[in-house]
Amino acid sequence: MTHDLTRDVVPGLDSVLAVDIGGTKFAVGLVDAQGQVIVADRVATPPGGDASTLRKALDGLIDSVLARRPDANLVGVGVGCGGPMTWPEGAVSPLNIPGWRGFPLRARLAERFPGMPVRVHNDAICVAAAEHWQGAGQGSDNMLGMVVSTGVGGGLILGGRLIDGGTGNAGHIGHVVVDPDGPACRCGGRGCLEAISRGPGLAAWALEQGWAPGATGARPEGLYVEAAQANGRQLSADAAAGDPIALGALARAGRALGIGIASATHLCDLDVVTIGGGLSQAGPLLFEPLEEALRAHARLDFARRVRVVPAHLGQDAGLIGAAALILLPARYWTGPA
Amino acid sequence: MTHDLTRDVVPGLDSVLAVDIGGTKFAVGLVDAQGQVIVADRVATPPGGDASTLRKALDGLIDSVLARRPDANLVGVGVGCGGPMTWPEGAVSPLNIPGWRGFPLRARLAERFPGMPVRVHNDAICVAAAEHWQGAGQGSDNMLGMVVSTGVGGGLILGGRLIDGGTGNAGHIGHVVVDPDGPACRCGGRGCLEAISRGPGLAAWALEQGWAPGATGARPEGLYVEAAQANGRQLSADAAAGDPIALGALARAGRALGIGIASATHLCDLDVVTIGGGLSQAGPLLFEPLEEALRAHARLDFARRVRVVPAHLGQDAGLIGAAALILLPARYWTGPA
Repeated sequence: MTHDLTRDVVPGLDSVLAVDIGGTKFAVGLVDAQGQVIVADRVATPPGGDASTLRKALDGLIDSVLARRPDANLVGVGVGCGGPMTWPEGAVSPLNIPGWRGFPLRARLAERFPGMPVRVHNDAICVAAAEHWQGAGQGSDNMLGMVVSTGVGGGLILGGRLIDGGTGNAGHIGHVVVDPDGPACRCGGRGCLEAISRGPGLAAWALEQGWAPGATGARPEGLYVEAAQANGRQLSADAAAGDPIALGALARAGRALGIGIASATHLCDLDVVTIGGGLSQAGPLLFEPLEEALRAHARLDFARRVRVVPAHLGQDAGLIGAAALILLPARYWTGPA
Repeated sequence: MTHDLTRDVVPGLDSVLAVDIGGTKFAVGLVDAQGQVIVADRVATPPGGDASTLRKALDGLIDSVLARRPDANLVGVGVGCGGPMTWPEGAVSPLNIPGWRGFPLRARLAERFPGMPVRVHNDAICVAAAEHWQGAGQGSDNMLGMVVSTGVGGGLILGGRLIDGGTGNAGHIGHVVVDPDGPACRCGGRGCLEAISRGPGLAAWALEQGWAPGATGARPEGLYVEAAQANGRQLSADAAAGDPIALGALARAGRALGIGIASATHLCDLDVVTIGGGLSQAGPLLFEPLEEALRAHARLDFARRVRVVPAHLGQDAGLIGAAALILLPARYWTGPA
């Protein structure tokens, strides 16, 4: 499935080729210097694809976008990709794309687009950069941009600049410990925020409590939804329809998020936290228990002022943030030019 | 009690007047451009002193230090002070100095030293800056400098620069939540690292378990120690002498520290964590359980590489870091010149 966001632009437009690689979909777009997405295509990630199949799918998507705007003057290639990866080298091993393990994504794109900067970063970091640049974090110099979905990821902006940490991995709010005796996490640890609050973790917990997915008759909105499934989106739909176990699951996720955000706020003195991703669509059913836990644990004066807000940019955030790596390096890129 | 660290220096030396204000002692020194403490005096914080008494004690200490080196060319005044405070304004309300509430420390010093920069920051942040500049964090661009003592504080250096956060309060590792159902914290929250691992918190826990302070016959080293007291230093001494409850208390503190450091490492992608302060003197009795908990919870590849090391600089760290605010503003000062 593809869709076109073509808008009126002048010919010969300087733009960034922006790429967003995730376990569910690949997205490619052209983003102008103002951060507007001029054109974008998306395809489902080839399920079970090997390295070559995945690469062909990406190349085809890039061809399709470029063909649509032959007037584009590319100034660089910005990529957000699921982690882990080596950074800034950009060899990627996305947790949810088993066909790529140590795949030299940046190097391959640099071969295809010689003479221009090609920059790869974590997809959640790109979303955080986008929300800071144009979204719910605009005007704040100190924010955490979160994505709560199949995983729980994030990116940190402090002092007005993206924080990379020692290896480009700063922002991993999903592995802040919120309950040291809590459930095992796929990272090998225990009680990480992600272990509790990611969609599949919540669904598993709800099933243990006796949840019957879809028994409320509610169906989540969105593509590819054919039947009730034991996932985070069905859980949100059932919670909205009043299912008490589903409501309990969202409260559990919200509480863990509030504790993790309290810790991050104390450590980093944040102004604002933006939350996007599928589970954030649950709205007050998630945000109210989150606020309650946050306010119980963030008690120092400076921490009380933190605001937690839904992300603004929706599915274009990844592309806009990937473009920001190229367009605004003083804020969002500390790697080599 | 005062002591003199006078070393041979050339006359007319450019130096910073460095001030370190804590609940136990006031320290004032002259620090040269290389970060060497040329002369330093210390006095016990006037117990129960009102604002005026406290100020006179500080002024007297400054007079004494300046009188000792009339050849000093002051280039600025750097101050580390216990929090909370308004930053960068430097109106201080140190938790352990009740006589100063909203005391305009920076303004008063600026009146006394017109025409030169006067910069005030949190004392734990000054210690972190010092350890980064000259101590155990040297050579790392991404570190957390911690102080574990009556409180648990810290300062963050990321991308080679001190991180201030929105209000100058970044680095509050002591209020990262390590056990959401844990003991109440004096901040009003629950289960903060500080609530568990600060000396008085540990001592209180040990007393509940039946600890008899000093029953081992061990006495902590240091000044002002006349009799066994139910505090962190006696606890460390008893643990070193084999008291099982005291050992359990240090293990409890170490575990909480390990969990908090794992969270900070995941969020900020740290290279190194330095730990100073009285309780860090307990050595392996604290650091071994700390490492065990840290390694159980810091499992992502990038997080496994974090090193936790004892601070190097001892009691001069606060003065050196206060001087760094003046001497190395590109790294350690983001406030107004």
